[in-house]
Amino acid sequence: MSDTQKCHSFFMLSQDHLLQLFKETRADSEMICSFLETEDYVVQPIVDVSPPKWHLGHTTWFFEEFVLKEYSKDHKLFDQNTAYVFNSYYESVGDKVIRTNRGNLSRPTVAWIYEFRRYVTNKIIDLLTNEKLSNKALEVVEIGCHHEKQHQELLYTDIKYILGNNPLFPKYNNEFEENPVQDFERKWIDITEGIYEIGHKSDDFCYDNEKGVHKTYLCDFSISNKLVTNKEYIEFINAGGYEDVLLWHAEAWDWVNENKIDKPSYWHKIDGEWYQYTLQGLVKLDPEAPVTHISYYEAFAYAQWKGMRLPTEEEWETAQDKFEWGSRWEWTESAYSPYPNYHKPDGALGEYNGKFMVNQKVLRGASVATSRDHTRPTYRNFFHPQLRWQFTGFRLVK
Amino acid sequence: MSDTQKCHSFFMLSQDHLLQLFKETRADSEMICSFLETEDYVVQPIVDVSPPKWHLGHTTWFFEEFVLKEYSKDHKLFDQNTAYVFNSYYESVGDKVIRTNRGNLSRPTVAWIYEFRRYVTNKIIDLLTNEKLSNKALEVVEIGCHHEKQHQELLYTDIKYILGNNPLFPKYNNEFEENPVQDFERKWIDITEGIYEIGHKSDDFCYDNEKGVHKTYLCDFSISNKLVTNKEYIEFINAGGYEDVLLWHAEAWDWVNENKIDKPSYWHKIDGEWYQYTLQGLVKLDPEAPVTHISYYEAFAYAQWKGMRLPTEEEWETAQDKFEWGSRWEWTESAYSPYPNYHKPDGALGEYNGKFMVNQKVLRGASVATSRDHTRPTYRNFFHPQLRWQFTGFRLVK
Amino acid sequence: MSDTQKCHSFFMLSQDHLLQLFKETRADSEMICSFLETEDYVVQPIVDVSPPKWHLGHTTWFFEEFVLKEYSKDHKLFDQNTAYVFNSYYESVGDKVIRTNRGNLSRPTVAWIYEFRRYVTNKIIDLLTNEKLSNKALEVVEIGCHHEKQHQELLYTDIKYILGNNPLFPKYNNEFEENPVQDFERKWIDITEGIYEIGHKSDDFCYDNEKGVHKTYLCDFSISNKLVTNKEYIEFINAGGYEDVLLWHAEAWDWVNENKIDKPSYWHKIDGEWYQYTLQGLVKLDPEAPVTHISYYEAFAYAQWKGMRLPTEEEWETAQDKFEWGSRWEWTESAYSPYPNYHKPDGALGEYNGKFMVNQKVLRGASVATSRDHTRPTYRNFFHPQLRWQFTGFRLVK
Amino acid sequence: MSDTQKCHSFFMLSQDHLLQLFKETRADSEMICSFLETEDYVVQPIVDVSPPKWHLGHTTWFFEEFVLKEYSKDHKLFDQNTAYVFNSYYESVGDKVIRTNRGNLSRPTVAWIYEFRRYVTNKIIDLLTNEKLSNKALEVVEIGCHHEKQHQELLYTDIKYILGNNPLFPKYNNEFEENPVQDFERKWIDITEGIYEIGHKSDDFCYDNEKGVHKTYLCDFSISNKLVTNKEYIEFINAGGYEDVLLWHAEAWDWVNENKIDKPSYWHKIDGEWYQYTLQGLVKLDPEAPVTHISYYEAFAYAQWKGMRLPTEEEWETAQDKFEWGSRWEWTESAYSPYPNYHKPDGALGEYNGKFMVNQKVLRGASVATSRDHTRPTYRNFFHPQLRWQFTGFRLVK
Repeated sequence: MSDTQKCHSFFMLSQDHLLQLFKETRADSEMICSFLETEDYVVQPIVDVSPPKWHLGHTTWFFEEFVLKEYSKDHKLFDQNTAYVFNSYYESVGDKVIRTNRGNLSRPTVAWIYEFRRYVTNKIIDLLTNEKLSNKALEVVEIGCHHEKQHQELLYTDIKYILGNNPLFPKYNNEFEENPVQDFERKWIDITEGIYEIGHKSDDFCYDNEKGVHKTYLCDFSISNKLVTNKEYIEFINAGGYEDVLLWHAEAWDWVNENKIDKPSYWHKIDGEWYQYTLQGLVKLDPEAPVTHISYYEAFAYAQWKGMRLPTEEEWETAQDKFEWGSRWEWTESAYSPYPNYHKPDGALGEYNGKFMVNQKVLRGASVATSRDHTRPTYRNFFHPQLRWQFTGFRLVK
Repeated sequence: MSDTQKCHSFFMLSQDHLLQLFKETRADSEMICSFLETEDYVVQPIVDVSPPKWHLGHTTWFFEEFVLKEYSKDHKLFDQNTAYVFNSYYESVGDKVIRTNRGNLSRPTVAWIYEFRRYVTNKIIDLLTNEKLSNKALEVVEIGCHHEKQHQELLYTDIKYILGNNPLFPKYNNEFEENPVQDFERKWIDITEGIYEIGHKSDDFCYDNEKGVHKTYLCDFSISNKLVTNKEYIEFINAGGYEDVLLWHAEAWDWVNENKIDKPSYWHKIDGEWYQYTLQGLVKLDPEAPVTHISYYEAFAYAQWKGMRLPTEEEWETAQDKFEWGSRWEWTESAYSPYPNYHKPDGALGEYNGKFMVNQKVLRGASVATSRDHTRPTYRNFFHPQLRWQFTGFRLVK
Repeated sequence: MSDTQKCHSFFMLSQDHLLQLFKETRADSEMICSFLETEDYVVQPIVDVSPPKWHLGHTTWFFEEFVLKEYSKDHKLFDQNTAYVFNSYYESVGDKVIRTNRGNLSRPTVAWIYEFRRYVTNKIIDLLTNEKLSNKALEVVEIGCHHEKQHQELLYTDIKYILGNNPLFPKYNNEFEENPVQDFERKWIDITEGIYEIGHKSDDFCYDNEKGVHKTYLCDFSISNKLVTNKEYIEFINAGGYEDVLLWHAEAWDWVNENKIDKPSYWHKIDGEWYQYTLQGLVKLDPEAPVTHISYYEAFAYAQWKGMRLPTEEEWETAQDKFEWGSRWEWTESAYSPYPNYHKPDGALGEYNGKFMVNQKVLRGASVATSRDHTRPTYRNFFHPQLRWQFTGFRLVK
Repeated sequence: MSDTQKCHSFFMLSQDHLLQLFKETRADSEMICSFLETEDYVVQPIVDVSPPKWHLGHTTWFFEEFVLKEYSKDHKLFDQNTAYVFNSYYESVGDKVIRTNRGNLSRPTVAWIYEFRRYVTNKIIDLLTNEKLSNKALEVVEIGCHHEKQHQELLYTDIKYILGNNPLFPKYNNEFEENPVQDFERKWIDITEGIYEIGHKSDDFCYDNEKGVHKTYLCDFSISNKLVTNKEYIEFINAGGYEDVLLWHAEAWDWVNENKIDKPSYWHKIDGEWYQYTLQGLVKLDPEAPVTHISYYEAFAYAQWKGMRLPTEEEWETAQDKFEWGSRWEWTESAYSPYPNYHKPDGALGEYNGKFMVNQKVLRGASVATSRDHTRPTYRNFFHPQLRWQFTGFRLVK
């Protein structure tokens, strides 16, 4: 998912609840980074990863740009040069540092960014405490919180990439458990052919791409109550899955060969045994844990090999209340497209609502890195099919 | 569409009819090439284009490999080295020349390829005339004919690319009319919300990706009876459509800027007037003709600009009997994915049935270059969203 | 060497002799191409190779552009579009087709180019026969002849590349013998320390980069009377020369690994035996023939392995009358730089005299593909150090 | 110049003097970095630049690998993983981190590296203080000091690149003066034709590429006593020098156009006035200071424009005692090649002595960033012709 998917909601939290949400959100980002060395905040090993200091600065810039500049009288900018560095891609809001350059910027420093955060956090707290804000302003604050929660997930996965691709395999934090075992039997949940309703219905927060409740017609299908496990995935590897061209999309086959892909990301075979880099360091692979850090291409090839398939996002949404989910973002067969009657919002925040709706696949669910309360059954995450640095996984349909 | 999408059918033409279809098909390919100079058969200016001689050889190789080698007793290969050069991508059938190298091969010569064609054509005619073939064998001959018809369309568009990107702008053939005017009023056809059936129903030939008739639920929509015209598209250009980031997908915007795209392919502005390279040479642009050689990205941006959208493939298929179509392949909003209950066929011919079902958009209809009888309402063509060398166009939905 | 190195001479052939030279030169180019199929004239498998039809057109364009347009009253151009297609790189003489696109142009046809040749050849013959030309005009005609002779060598090597990289390995011509054996003993020729004179001294034709006779100081050295042979080079391969990083330049090592170089160009190991593609087709490697189609990098690594080195161009020029040469262009250690007092000529023909004098190595001698009389002891050929499609070789110094 | 050009010397400093040299050298590197923020140590904006922390670690690794492991009994490595990260390119000494990845490594941290430095520095001091070392061991220590001095120059230029390409233009250090004005008249120094001796003669330290004193024959030439100034270079810009193809090498012209080069590196035109980023921050360009951060290509084009040329390295070395030098590394016309009788040393330290001797140009002199005593009249620096991040400059010859 793009790091700044735009969004809005009609119903507003009370100003008090919003203040609470804001404080917690801001604190959470800093808690996540509290385990880092200064150097870890700076690097960008691949274009999909952003330096942690950039995430901290960008989420802060968002509040200054869209809340304080708009709704706080006589707001004095913390620094005139901020916007340039922390604007991620809003083409209509001035210049930006191109994404591939973020890891080249040693300044502003981490200390500066924490000061910037304190300044903006306090200003927003003041505003929420002492002013009666319009619904529109409150809405933008709420969006800002959800925007920052998205970046919290990216912080985890980007930190994992930064540390896990360092030859020294440093640990992030001993407490972060990323491999919850599904200790229950595999069962197949049957869904009957018919008309189902898709899309976000309640008044709670959601992004605009979830809206436009609409009917869809599904055929009979059976979906697994369990995610595919490491043990099962090893069988696929051992059966020569990565060498069998018949299992792969044409573009996937090129990707496998150009990048010499033969296992999930973060896996290492040492003296004949499988290890996995996790945020707790390099550990033995747990065969019962759900496989993760695999691309859509690999999920699809595995399903082909089993003679099954991935669910569509409509199937997933329809069946999801009958199985456990939440530890892996789950690849679906669905391409990311607008729902019927999707309308893009006006203005800078809604600038590009449809702009990612091509060449990406929808993922449903959530992962071990997803911030609290930052998902729901209708949430539509999306990534290019070859990407693997998120905590991705998949379940089968037959 | 890939040049060798695999396919099969359950119902068989009589052996006599098939002989007729085969003879016509083979003759048509040679008629198309009869307007070329020897040199035109050889070049490959971009990877999506194949040299005409390659098309002629590859379609012939297909018949020798899958019909004569399988069903003709004691068949003597025309040449042992053929397969290597003309295998397009069947990974399970030996080596192949990688696609980007086709234009580097001066040998075999055009004369050799015509000899090869005669040899194989005559052998197949013998077979169909003198042997009683099994249904399976007849099926493969039928597929071979449809396969060659697909290549006939590619012959036209590849020849157009080869000649139209030559600085001398040579004509292909004065008789080839590619710009039929739609001389009727624009009207909006209303389709009512409800369940509709999608997929190929009759016993006639179709590809396997059209099969699996299934229900779909559509919301109310209105679709234009006319394709977007050159005149309308010029309005979009003049209104700055190519410079307005808000109209484009993020990937499209990169594509526009990297490739300096500011008009459809084959358009030239000379002394303030629009010209278009056509197979009849460079001519003044006809404002009333349907716009063509535009990418999905451009079709989408135009629709955004009009506050409308493209149809999904299900909408198009449901509405298609209420409007004229057939001069342009029409971009839809739908990503190319398997239908519910899609099953890939076994064996070499069905080797890769799903392998293109990622990162491509479906096009519906047919074009001025489509071979006779080589389309139907359920036909699913597909291309990457940036491609423009086919006779693409689009109609709007609101 | 660039295909259009500029040049001039002070002494002029008589007009009669020049007419003779011109006629022979024009006939030679066409003789070289007489063994080709039409398709062979068209392709450009790598950027360093030009399509044979381009060579034929370009050398003709040169005479029309620089002789007929300048010195033939009321000359009527054969075709207005010619210059655009056949200008190789003279930035000051209008547009040009970029080098990588030459192989994409099916038009003008080969037949057209032969007509163009006849037209220009006849006009020049008329001019030389019926007009009294100025020295300046005669000089340009002479340059044009030498320019075409350079292209004759390129014709051979480009044709070899085109046919030798075709999977069918077609023969060019059974008569072309490219592997003359040196059937004499290896001896080391000693040259004594001292001042030597370098540069072209006589009044015969030479290029401007050979001029400026100047003194150089050489230390004692011994140079081999024989080129390194295939047999010797195989010893280097068998000793692991391509895997020993210590023998290679840093850039060479990257080149070896990125391109998986492990033998000279055109070598093939089939069933444990070495074969070589030659203009006579695929033949067994002759162990006594001088090794060819090796890069400077490989020549250097071989010399390192032997504990010897390559000669500088001054050493080669000083010693060359004491050994046989002429079958291989011989790599030297010298970078291509201007001689002291080098002055670039004015005008379009002298446009870029120094423009290749960076990042290239000097080669001395001549090769089996060099046109008659198209070399001399002072001739300075030059290529980038990784190039191998010429008939390159080397001799050692200790 | 490569960051680890190999070297050796015959004459040895006394062990006491060497201890002094070692201490000063180690302290100097840390002084240079004392002006940095932690974040500045980490980034690598282009492949030619290394992160400052890498320089500090690599120079330390050198002493541990080649001195302590060899000559210190029972040496306990500071850390087993060090070599992998800090080996720059010695292929025969185990694995290495490829150069383009250095900026992706957040670990080891800066604090860790300073600890590593202290550990190794103290061990070497112990060794020099308490042991009687062999001449060979002392030689390696001396080389290690000179190696670290080379990296000190790179520290300055890499830091300048890191800060000067940051949009915030942070200062490095107010005291660092990089633009010494040459406040004297331009004069032309005449050198007479004849035999001159080239190469390092004294017993002081030098690199092996300076050795092999040999005679060379020079023609008459006149060399400027002054470097080309900013003011003079602006005249070249204003005269359209960057747009005149006739002034440039062919490869240079491609480089200019692909990279949109139209001024020296670090120059900015703001409101019609020229500014320059320096280690003191962004300042107005001083017209009288010697131009710097220009490529060989630009130096050559300027000389062409003036109708003059660059000196060869032999000319420069012969004339250098008649002019002031030391603020700019000066481009010469000479390609970097071995001197006559150059022999590469054995063993790991001499592993690759000739491996950079292709495709690079020699620079002579020194720059404002050169460490004290780290140059001499015979010093041969070398870089690829397009590189600009060093304090390069040039003087003319006519």
